Amino acid sequence: MGAGRVPSLVLVNTGHGKGKSSAAFGVMGRAWARGWKVGVVQFVKGGKWKVGERKLADHLGIEWQTLGDGFTWESTDLDETAAKGRHAWEVARVKLASGDYDMLILDELTYAVTYGWVPVDEVVAGVMQRAPKTNVVITGRDAAPELIEIADTVTEMRVVKHAYERGIKARKGIEY
Amino acid sequence: MGAGRVPSLVLVNTGHGKGKSSAAFGVMGRAWARGWKVGVVQFVKGGKWKVGERKLADHLGIEWQTLGDGFTWESTDLDETAAKGRHAWEVARVKLASGDYDMLILDELTYAVTYGWVPVDEVVAGVMQRAPKTNVVITGRDAAPELIEIADTVTEMRVVKHAYERGIKARKGIEY
Repeated sequence: MGAGRVPSLVLVNTGHGKGKSSAAFGVMGRAWARGWKVGVVQFVKGGKWKVGERKLADHLGIEWQTLGDGFTWESTDLDETAAKGRHAWEVARVKLASGDYDMLILDELTYAVTYGWVPVDEVVAGVMQRAPKTNVVITGRDAAPELIEIADTVTEMRVVKHAYERGIKARKGIEY
Repeated sequence: MGAGRVPSLVLVNTGHGKGKSSAAFGVMGRAWARGWKVGVVQFVKGGKWKVGERKLADHLGIEWQTLGDGFTWESTDLDETAAKGRHAWEVARVKLASGDYDMLILDELTYAVTYGWVPVDEVVAGVMQRAPKTNVVITGRDAAPELIEIADTVTEMRVVKHAYERGIKARKGIEY
């Protein structure tokens, strides 16, 4: 398929600055405004974090699955978090291949690779073998070179200055 | 006022990468989810751009003013765009001082400074003299050092890779 004609894109928001997930959720809103079917899989269960985003997604009728949702623990020698992370990836992989989505947001997926829950090759294969129409947005620090390689657009969010440095705590409504 | 106790924050999303405005609109959704009163002033009238964001804002009951809205042209020797830009800034300045908002998003405000529509000192004064509770999110390339200086958190969105480079056009639902 020639340049300019690919049916869907892969976006990666990485780096140690703010705005990786916020930008993904901004894109989510834009996709919603276009009438797209959007799904979110959240790979890091955040407590107070992402509560606002989820509320917005629920309000907009956007499907949202968080790490561990629908997960039945079966004893193995795997660490439970790793097992949940693998489960979240399985959920994402099935959604990617399903053809049911115009956009999937795989929020903080990079950590599933960094923490060793999912081999990067599996993630690459799952993204490459997605349904052609499904755009993918991946967020998280330290995106693996293999993910950068298959992405169409990669943005690094770089910290220039952060309120935390001045001892200001994360704010409800702004950061969660 | 001591660190950790400031009543509101100033966030700047700058750089030449993607996600500056998307992240601001992600934060808008988060603020909405918290029941905050949010306003948007858009300093660059974008044609097809920001249509999705505005639709989302309208859906959420968020006030949105675009460059030139409510502007009555009176002949002067100023360029019309510059005059509209100054008008948008006047609108923003009044909103900043009003105490009516928990958050104001000044989308692409940096261009009003870069293009010389508004002196940077006026913007700094307007932001500094805002109502104490009003959080501010400023987006746009090449944020002036004076804006960086007064910001609490500054993120540079840096291009690592961009689909445009491969001849892929901007996509509805993703980039507008």
